[in-house]
This record gives sequence, structure tokens and C-alpha cells, in this order.
Amino acid sequence: MNKNRKAVVLLSGGLDSATALAIAAAKGFDCYAMSFDYGQRHRFELEAAKTIAEKLGAVKHLVLPVGLGDIGESALTADIAVPKTRSDTDIATGIPVTYVPARNTVFLSCALAWAEALRAPDIFIGVNAIDYSGYPDCRPEFINAFERMANLAIKAAVEGNIRIHIQAPLLYLTKAEIIKKGMALGVDYSITHSCYDPSPEGLACGQCDSCRFRKKGFAEAGLDDPTHYAKK
Amino acid sequence: MNKNRKAVVLLSGGLDSATALAIAAAKGFDCYAMSFDYGQRHRFELEAAKTIAEKLGAVKHLVLPVGLGDIGESALTADIAVPKTRSDTDIATGIPVTYVPARNTVFLSCALAWAEALRAPDIFIGVNAIDYSGYPDCRPEFINAFERMANLAIKAAVEGNIRIHIQAPLLYLTKAEIIKKGMALGVDYSITHSCYDPSPEGLACGQCDSCRFRKKGFAEAGLDDPTHYAKK
Repeated sequence: MNKNRKAVVLLSGGLDSATALAIAAAKGFDCYAMSFDYGQRHRFELEAAKTIAEKLGAVKHLVLPVGLGDIGESALTADIAVPKTRSDTDIATGIPVTYVPARNTVFLSCALAWAEALRAPDIFIGVNAIDYSGYPDCRPEFINAFERMANLAIKAAVEGNIRIHIQAPLLYLTKAEIIKKGMALGVDYSITHSCYDPSPEGLACGQCDSCRFRKKGFAEAGLDDPTHYAKK
Repeated sequence: MNKNRKAVVLLSGGLDSATALAIAAAKGFDCYAMSFDYGQRHRFELEAAKTIAEKLGAVKHLVLPVGLGDIGESALTADIAVPKTRSDTDIATGIPVTYVPARNTVFLSCALAWAEALRAPDIFIGVNAIDYSGYPDCRPEFINAFERMANLAIKAAVEGNIRIHIQAPLLYLTKAEIIKKGMALGVDYSITHSCYDPSPEGLACGQCDSCRFRKKGFAEAGLDDPTHYAKK
């Protein structure tokens, strides 16, 4: 149905973006996966992204360097402790210190640049506004405003050659629904990486928000969690 | 009037952004100048940006690496010839090959990230929709859409701590008016760099769109052009 139609897919190497890539591929898009080297602590996700892109048949995988670490002020890029909680249901409220300023805006902007160069009208992003950390740039109103701006920003849209669609197929799904959908599409979640603060060997901490949401999702889906945790 | 109020100022090293920085400084902002190393051919502009930031009293100058050159499709980053014209009034129409996909969107997004980290409500950009190359991301409708999106994207805005203003003080000025304004504020245009295709020694070609607009601006302002041209 979307044969020979190109899509740029933002791929962090985590559970959500791997599922978004599987969905785009299942819809028939030629997928161009895009990851960022932005000074993140959890760099295992870049290795995970590479493997996922290969396994899910992406046409190309681009890792773009962007110096967000030079800007600071996040537990994901600076020397600030990643918060841990004591149980899977004890997930912090409010926007946490793992928030990276304008991260999805920067990522979507770079995806927009690549989309224009490729003449790809669709950009997939695995944001979710249900089981998420409360980051403002995961909400539907942000996605809609970005799409509107994007179509005023680029030559190919202004000249009428393409119209950009920001596709967020996980936006209204629970984590359990995302996992079930991905499993049905053959995603191997053992190779995805969600943890904000992995051990030096790449084991998930099991206690950060991202690990909590992931564990809760597998439990609610009634499926075995294939993640390698340092602590359960 | 804006004492102790911070602003991020996008600084390419060219005539327009130097003037935008001078305007922000004259308004009393503490200016945080931001440039990008994006694989541009005209890298002399980064040296120019450094000198301009110092001379105009920026609190800090950050050069952020962003791999736009990996994405390709512009005469400014790839091996595509920069178009030259035969006279100062012969400036090409339409959006030229020097267009870089989504460049101002990427730059403003990174500026937004820094603005949030600094708690700087104002972002200055030297875009101009009068004497310009027709790039879509220099138009007021783009700037307005970006500002709207920005205030939905970041934690500091969503939580009501700051409201982002994208300031584009040159938007409706002619090049001659920009030059007169900058001169009045003490900008030394001999250190700004506008050329898309400088000689190995950093001399301006005098024949690309950017040089043509610059020369025309000085002529219309009735002022001597201090630029060092390879060819007049």
C-alpha cells in the first residue's frame, strides 16, 4: 500500500521506537532509520538501534552527531543521578530530571532535514502519551504543532512537492498494547534497550522510570520480559 | 530595560546575524551566541562568528556540532557548485541550490534547547524576508509557527516558568536598512563573513547570491563596503 514510499523513522533503540519501526515497515514503507549520538549516558541504545534497524529491514540507518550534551541540564547527558524507585507501581509524577531540553524538537528537526533530502513525506516517532514520563514533547499538541511548522519550513513542502506527516502510531496505546503489537509484528524485544542508567556491561537497572514502565508493560500484557536486568 | 534577561542569539558570522546580536545587546540582553559546525563549505564564518561574539560582548559563544552534512543535498554542504551571477542586480529567483534542508528549524531547535537550559525566554535570529534568497525558513509564517510549537515543546514553558519569544528584528528591513542599523550600533562589518564560496584564503567571491545582496545593500545605504573580495 505504501510501496516505494519512503519514511524516516526515529529510532532510539528502545522498546517504543523499535515498535514504531516495525509498524512503518508493516505498512510497506521503505524505512530510513535515524538515531542520534547526543552524549547520552545510555549509549548501549545506539548499539541496540543498529541491530534493530538491521533486523527490521531498514534501508539505511544514520547516526547523527548532535552536541546536546554541551548544553547540559539533564540526568541523561550530565552528571546528575538518574532517580530510582522501589517498586514497579511507584513511578514519579511531574516532569523528571531525565528530561532533555527540546530533545524531540531537535530530533524531529533533523528527521525533517533528512525527510526533505530523501523526498520522504512521512516521519515516524514512537512517542506515547499514556505510559510515559510526562515529557511535554511526547504530547499530541506538540506533535501537531511540529507538523504544522514543518510544512512551512521546507522547500519541498512550500513548493508543493511533498506534505510532511508526523506519524505517532503509539500515541494513545498503553505500554502493554505497544508490546503486544510489536510482538505480533515480530519485534525481538530482547535486543531493545530502555534503561536510562545501565550497568557498565549494559544490564538494565530495573529501577529507573523507563525500566519501571517497561516491566509494568510486560506484566500487564501477560508476557515474559526478555530484558536482562542487573536487579529485578 | 532587559538587564539580567538572557537571550540566545543565533550567530552565523554573517552580516545579518551580527546585526541581530548587536540589536539584542543594545536592548540590554545578556547574549549567549550560538553557532553550528554543520559541515558548511564556508567555514570561515565560524572564525568570524567567534570574533563577532567577542567584539559585541556576548557572555558566551557556543559552537555546536550538528551533522547536517551527512544528510546532503545542498551546495553549502555537498560538492555542488555555488551559482554565480554576472552583476549585482542579477540575483536568481526561486529557492536556490544553496538551500540547506530544514536548516533554520534545526538551528532554532538547538537554540530552544539551550534557551531552556539557560532560562532565556528570548531567541534572536537574523532572518530577513526582503533582500533574501527565498528560503522558506526565513519567512514570518515559519517563525510564528516555530514559536507556537516551541511553547508546547519544553518543560519550562509548559510549567509556566518562561514563554519563548522568537525575535526576528531584521524580518522586514532591506539590506541597506540592516547595514545602517548595524553601523549605528557599532558593528564592524569588515569582520563579518557572508560569502557562500570563499577562496582558500577566505576572500569573498563577490558573485554568489549572498555577496550580491551584501554589495547591493552597501551601495543602497551609500556606505563603503569593507568586504575583502577576490573579484569585485
